[in-house]
Amino acid sequence: MNLKAQLLHIQAGGRNVAILDDASASYLGVHSSDRVKISYKNKHTVAIVNVAANFPRGSIGLYEEPAKKLGVEKEEDVKVELVTLPESLSYIQAKINNGRLRGNEIELIIRDVVEGHLSNIELASFLTALHIHGLSMDEVEALSRAMVKTGRTLSLGKKPILDKHSIGGIPGDKTSILVVPIIAAAGFTIPKTSSRAVTSAAGTADRVEALCPVSLSVEEIRKVVEKTNGCMVWGGALELAPADDIFIQIEYPLAIDPMLLPSIMSKKKAIGATHVVLDIPTGRGAKIKTMGEAEALAADFMDLGKRLGMNVQVGVTFGEQPLGNAVGPALEAREALSAIMGNCPPDLYEKATNLAGILLEMVGKKNGRQLAQEILKSGKAEQKLREIIEAQGGNPKVKAEDIAVGDKKAEVIADKDGEVLWITNEGIAKIAKEAGAPKDKGAGLLLKTKLGDHVKKGQAILEIVAERSTKLESAIELARKIQPIGLSKKPEDRMLMERIPTPVVHKKTFILDR
Amino acid sequence: MNLKAQLLHIQAGGRNVAILDDASASYLGVHSSDRVKISYKNKHTVAIVNVAANFPRGSIGLYEEPAKKLGVEKEEDVKVELVTLPESLSYIQAKINNGRLRGNEIELIIRDVVEGHLSNIELASFLTALHIHGLSMDEVEALSRAMVKTGRTLSLGKKPILDKHSIGGIPGDKTSILVVPIIAAAGFTIPKTSSRAVTSAAGTADRVEALCPVSLSVEEIRKVVEKTNGCMVWGGALELAPADDIFIQIEYPLAIDPMLLPSIMSKKKAIGATHVVLDIPTGRGAKIKTMGEAEALAADFMDLGKRLGMNVQVGVTFGEQPLGNAVGPALEAREALSAIMGNCPPDLYEKATNLAGILLEMVGKKNGRQLAQEILKSGKAEQKLREIIEAQGGNPKVKAEDIAVGDKKAEVIADKDGEVLWITNEGIAKIAKEAGAPKDKGAGLLLKTKLGDHVKKGQAILEIVAERSTKLESAIELARKIQPIGLSKKPEDRMLMERIPTPVVHKKTFILDR
Repeated sequence: MNLKAQLLHIQAGGRNVAILDDASASYLGVHSSDRVKISYKNKHTVAIVNVAANFPRGSIGLYEEPAKKLGVEKEEDVKVELVTLPESLSYIQAKINNGRLRGNEIELIIRDVVEGHLSNIELASFLTALHIHGLSMDEVEALSRAMVKTGRTLSLGKKPILDKHSIGGIPGDKTSILVVPIIAAAGFTIPKTSSRAVTSAAGTADRVEALCPVSLSVEEIRKVVEKTNGCMVWGGALELAPADDIFIQIEYPLAIDPMLLPSIMSKKKAIGATHVVLDIPTGRGAKIKTMGEAEALAADFMDLGKRLGMNVQVGVTFGEQPLGNAVGPALEAREALSAIMGNCPPDLYEKATNLAGILLEMVGKKNGRQLAQEILKSGKAEQKLREIIEAQGGNPKVKAEDIAVGDKKAEVIADKDGEVLWITNEGIAKIAKEAGAPKDKGAGLLLKTKLGDHVKKGQAILEIVAERSTKLESAIELARKIQPIGLSKKPEDRMLMERIPTPVVHKKTFILDR
Repeated sequence: MNLKAQLLHIQAGGRNVAILDDASASYLGVHSSDRVKISYKNKHTVAIVNVAANFPRGSIGLYEEPAKKLGVEKEEDVKVELVTLPESLSYIQAKINNGRLRGNEIELIIRDVVEGHLSNIELASFLTALHIHGLSMDEVEALSRAMVKTGRTLSLGKKPILDKHSIGGIPGDKTSILVVPIIAAAGFTIPKTSSRAVTSAAGTADRVEALCPVSLSVEEIRKVVEKTNGCMVWGGALELAPADDIFIQIEYPLAIDPMLLPSIMSKKKAIGATHVVLDIPTGRGAKIKTMGEAEALAADFMDLGKRLGMNVQVGVTFGEQPLGNAVGPALEAREALSAIMGNCPPDLYEKATNLAGILLEMVGKKNGRQLAQEILKSGKAEQKLREIIEAQGGNPKVKAEDIAVGDKKAEVIADKDGEVLWITNEGIAKIAKEAGAPKDKGAGLLLKTKLGDHVKKGQAILEIVAERSTKLESAIELARKIQPIGLSKKPEDRMLMERIPTPVVHKKTFILDR
């Protein structure tokens, strides 16, 4: 039937959606979630139908996605007909019922995800089924390949290409800002893409942005890497794996992350990585709690790497407290810059030189860790970082104190003597976010003490930094409530860890930053 | 922050949804699927956020649901602030991770479903998790109670209230149109609500609508039942279990039905039923394939009935072929009317009198089936049906031939002699739908032969009826392709049931009509 196109001028999150009124839907025999083929001039597109009782009769409402594909720019007649549901949906249904998916079936699903042919309902069900049933390594490989195939790639035309990635979850983890310059200074190519914070106080892209622009095009990245061997850019707009950007939207409210392996590894493949060191922070308060789990996940990453033609090695790192002392975009950038200039917190130094060392040994260097330490100590890493900053459009002469941080500050004071027995990652991240991070770039916090330190009553254990006083107030309030730093003389003096029911209920935070 | 409300004048399927542009979302620290509290004058509502890059800055787009709740009628300033995700979502997340849900947690979920506070993503994940993990009977009971609590109820102020329900899936099942008048004629109260077709060729509400109006209000239903002891109305607009109407929208594209028990039984409870006979059609081509499955499901229905204070008995019925000969709204209404007037196909007669008999025995009558047969044969059931038709606003003198059916007809002819070894329910339903049912009320088909019949080459085995010639043509074409009626002299003459790959691929149909 012919219907008048109504342009809604609203995006549907990449999904190809159209709205029909009850009467037209009934005439076409269409229910919500059915598909219609819409034709305009010599163009066609298939859209997911939403039936809305109050929509004007004889009209079809076009969200921006189908309107663009059809080239409809004003109210004009389009032809609308019912078509069968996409074949990919039958494979999603098979997965819901615990079926195994073949490579071509997975590719069809991923293509339809990227084309916007699958609805939020169908995507949510698919990801939930993957979360519950799990994925075979064949499925993981096929998903990774399909995600690369449907995205853009960066070909630098040389080998080896090195890369470093963390599965995330540790507040203050600015390791990449040290590792990338070390590797690049050693003469190897490392085109690092990072994400912004989704649920954390800062992503690596947010941290680097306090030093230089990070939203570069693929062409700009190529030039930066040609000049400096490395880069540190935001991967979000590069469309390396556009399917994953859609999956993240769905996973976020559900607090599930079944695509961890294909999500990370498809992006490594897309930038042409040949050698990847993967950081799996482990421990209470980290995504991965035990060494056993970390080893199993590491084996999967290495297997997947092999299947995709990449050499992957894993560093399982201590993840029971934040890394370094600073949390929040600008505060972390300051700390990273000071660190590379010689004033490095010991845990950050340990972690960065170990991971860089693994990468260097993977490409044939002897004593990788020692080499990394030398590059750091010699000032070559700092020089390389400044080259990269300049190539990406920042000020190569930037000093730590040039980086603006919030001027509203408050200290949290120890209420007794004791040793720091625990620091909860989740609590620290929450307080930094309450202070305004990552939106307020200069907000966050500074840890004045770390695990094992001995503190005296009245000593500052935390400094909260904010750009706005209201944010500072509510962060102080939150810190008081959740007490993220646990003090005791000896563990045996503090055997009661939690009293249930506690007067304060706070929910688990889901970490989705990759 | 204050934003200008933009009225979108579009319904979001009952969900409370609002649109923010990138910049406002980032300022508020909001991602898609987060929740914002919107305040206007002294009213507040919580809406699910969609972030759309192209939305005008400084505006918030309100779908009709939040606009109505706030009473915003034109572009005006509203206050928007980030709020935490609903508590119900944490219970959904628990179910995704195979947790058990408590009664109060389930009630909170169902309340938020009805209020539109959960997104399609969250609902799809919840239903998928229920489908995969299954539900405990405690959860089933809690879901049923919560669905009744959040809906309207019909209180007739008397006991017993009888009811009959089929889990569906059998084309041509017009049993209710006989059972309701039999029970009402026996002096018992039976306020029957039915659904329209979702995926089938006709629902009972579609069938009855060919005899009289079915869209009655609760008040009108009460009057009809007071006058006649019974009714046969469409349950869809009564809001007996509004949560279920939302679940069905989500289950439909996913082809899952985890809420079968609470969906059916909440509606029985809402109309105040005390005695329910439940029909479970069983066999190849039915929803339930084996007696074992049917018995397990029956036990669950009876257990749930007891928990909800209803006496439930189950009839497991032969479900390997359509019931009677007619399929399609008007054709079935004709057949039901003829049947109650004395010209009843034997399978329909058997089924209707057996199920009515069970109900009569449940309320203390002896020899229920015999009593049902007597009421049918005496003409009292016919008289009662005509009373109900009149009370609902139809013509009590209606004759079968008064009911309009399509005038485009074609017969499908046997291509050999043989016995009818199978008739596929799915194939028959597909052909009837291709002919135009249920949208074209007069479309459908007539079976000229049933299982076990002996047919001669050249004899008609199927008659297709349509209102439009194009529909007739495509239904004939489909019948030729899928051959829904299997003929052979003896099974041993036709051992090859299917050749794989077959040249024709047709997918399994999902039945969702309740």
